Amino acid sequence: MEYEEILPEIIGKNENKILLLVLDGLGGIPHPETGKTELETANIPNIDEFAKNGSCGLSIPVLPGITPGSGPGHISLFGYDPIKVLIGRGVLECLGIGVNLGKEDIAIRGNFATIDENDIVTDRRAGRISTDENKKIVDLISKNIKEINGVKISINTVKEHRCAIVLRGKNLSPDVSENDPQKENLPLKEILPLNQEGKFTASVLNEFEKKVKEILKNVNSKAKVILLRGISKLPDVPTFQEKYKLKSACIATYPMYKGISKVVGMDIIEVGETVEEEFDKLEKVYDNYEFFFLHIKKTDSMGEDGNFNGKVKFLEDVDKKIWRLKKLNFSAMAITGDHSTPSVLKGHSWHPVPLVIVSPNMIRDDIERFSERECAKGILGTIYAKQIMYLLLASSLKLGKFGA
Amino acid sequence: MEYEEILPEIIGKNENKILLLVLDGLGGIPHPETGKTELETANIPNIDEFAKNGSCGLSIPVLPGITPGSGPGHISLFGYDPIKVLIGRGVLECLGIGVNLGKEDIAIRGNFATIDENDIVTDRRAGRISTDENKKIVDLISKNIKEINGVKISINTVKEHRCAIVLRGKNLSPDVSENDPQKENLPLKEILPLNQEGKFTASVLNEFEKKVKEILKNVNSKAKVILLRGISKLPDVPTFQEKYKLKSACIATYPMYKGISKVVGMDIIEVGETVEEEFDKLEKVYDNYEFFFLHIKKTDSMGEDGNFNGKVKFLEDVDKKIWRLKKLNFSAMAITGDHSTPSVLKGHSWHPVPLVIVSPNMIRDDIERFSERECAKGILGTIYAKQIMYLLLASSLKLGKFGA
Repeated sequence: MEYEEILPEIIGKNENKILLLVLDGLGGIPHPETGKTELETANIPNIDEFAKNGSCGLSIPVLPGITPGSGPGHISLFGYDPIKVLIGRGVLECLGIGVNLGKEDIAIRGNFATIDENDIVTDRRAGRISTDENKKIVDLISKNIKEINGVKISINTVKEHRCAIVLRGKNLSPDVSENDPQKENLPLKEILPLNQEGKFTASVLNEFEKKVKEILKNVNSKAKVILLRGISKLPDVPTFQEKYKLKSACIATYPMYKGISKVVGMDIIEVGETVEEEFDKLEKVYDNYEFFFLHIKKTDSMGEDGNFNGKVKFLEDVDKKIWRLKKLNFSAMAITGDHSTPSVLKGHSWHPVPLVIVSPNMIRDDIERFSERECAKGILGTIYAKQIMYLLLASSLKLGKFGA
Repeated sequence: MEYEEILPEIIGKNENKILLLVLDGLGGIPHPETGKTELETANIPNIDEFAKNGSCGLSIPVLPGITPGSGPGHISLFGYDPIKVLIGRGVLECLGIGVNLGKEDIAIRGNFATIDENDIVTDRRAGRISTDENKKIVDLISKNIKEINGVKISINTVKEHRCAIVLRGKNLSPDVSENDPQKENLPLKEILPLNQEGKFTASVLNEFEKKVKEILKNVNSKAKVILLRGISKLPDVPTFQEKYKLKSACIATYPMYKGISKVVGMDIIEVGETVEEEFDKLEKVYDNYEFFFLHIKKTDSMGEDGNFNGKVKFLEDVDKKIWRLKKLNFSAMAITGDHSTPSVLKGHSWHPVPLVIVSPNMIRDDIERFSERECAKGILGTIYAKQIMYLLLASSLKLGKFGA
């Protein structure tokens, strides 16, 4: 990313405070009956007031037409290149359940699966065993396997047939193949090193799988082996402190977002479940940090569920609380989303996300409503999510001149 | 191009159908007397209706300020990087007259030229001999030269002093210099290999030129040698099937556009000369493909001729026929051009081209007129032509999520 070449030369430090407020899955597309999106339907006078006082635009999460997962969606908002800084699926699974990962740890997504007597995978999800059954099996494996060749192994329940595994030790590498045959009625694969560095890890994982098989052989469950997938470690990226000289805090209710924030070196603020509690915490820690990432989850959940009215209602709930932000003295504040989650599509989408940046050092435009179609006419235009951090830094006067 | 890194991970397949309708040279600039462009002058209620129901924007063919030829103009629309995927001039000359090229063939643009007794080029266009004279000479050369050192050689009339030559055989390479001195009163150059791989091809072409000279020595024509230029082969690109998993068809009346479509693996549908016939064919083959490229030529020809009223009239003609598209059930349809051809400039230009994408999965904006200045206010903003394919794939729900 071009920014990285010039940032060290221009990044400065002052006491100005920045807020990045992310309403997960914020954007939508029109409801076929009303022709209006969730934001267009919602009565959100306080958020509209921010739009009125700010510079509006749309944010492209990755590239036009590309729908991001939560990883790339947030990595972009944090100002990193989402195509270069990849968060592996194993890492994301661990972060999502709140498992701590060290820089050198290997994180793995596991699927409990059923095999027959010839090691042929007959059910890649072990009949979607219950989460309770999963917990019992994970307990059993945890008791019996603690270490292999000096590598500490921990296994954690995710839900149903899914688990997450962490290897901790020396000389580990994610450069190994997976053992998932991808389709049923094919044999479980051997884990192979992809290069010299992967040899030791492959041997540890094959030994682990052998032991799991022995343990589960006589257990009354469809779970007989674990398909090991998304074998990965934390991306090696500079932290917010290193990159932006920012002391930064994450206020989020879901483990996944705390996890991604930790990857970029934010302090994770403990907080309850509600938006109210998140704003309480923001006020409480306001003096201690220069950058705040506040993540609100349910816009996305409602969209994923196809609950158009629920998303509208939740936006209105957030709106009722958001006026509190006006009392805090942010030099620059962005309200946006990591991607759109249109209720109509019941999932993440590629549509550019409404964005407003409020700062005394930005030019306010004549947009009066915070919505997809209004923000498209804003003064910021349609920009890439990875550029937003730089506008926040600039408008809080933390960036010096590039070149003489 | 960044897309290529992530596309294999996310490209899916479904039965949804996509139409890319290209009005060649669509955009214009205002007529000095009326202050209106061709599109602004034309009465095009049906095209305007698509604009009303779709998402509008402008498309930059290559980069702001860069005027593309037909090659880069279309390569971009097909979702390839026009700066990286180059179609050589020899290849384009062959495609333009409908000569079939294999992956390993060497294609060359030839100019018949006049030389004096000392091999000094005295006329680089041989007095612009007539196309008839060209044909006679090409016949004569074809009868006398069929093969050199195992390489099959075919020569084809283009028009006036221009011809196109194809070499077919083993160990051929386009890495050779040209023999055109570029200016008159300079000697004809020897063709030299640019690297080891070019040695054999250079020797074949020098031998070819020697034989041509002997044949034309005693012929009553100003054509005495051939300047060999634009020596090239087909670019090595993934096809639409490989890249997008799309079964795709080209409906175009001019050989050039059929040729470029063939480069990216489209099936070429045989069709008559008129727009009416093109739409007929589209309806006929509708069930057999997932992607359709329909190319309409005359907007560009009228612009090139500086025929402002002719371009307006032709746009109105197309408009009268375009309502038929509404009867077909495209998941996503784009109407745009490969570049602008303002009648005022009598040639291709760099101006961003009006674009509308119509899809139930896109957000329609409040644009009501399909024109340069109205589309500039649309929700798509000003995007790059190479991004359009990704919006079409996304809105026909063929792209999965990037990252977890």
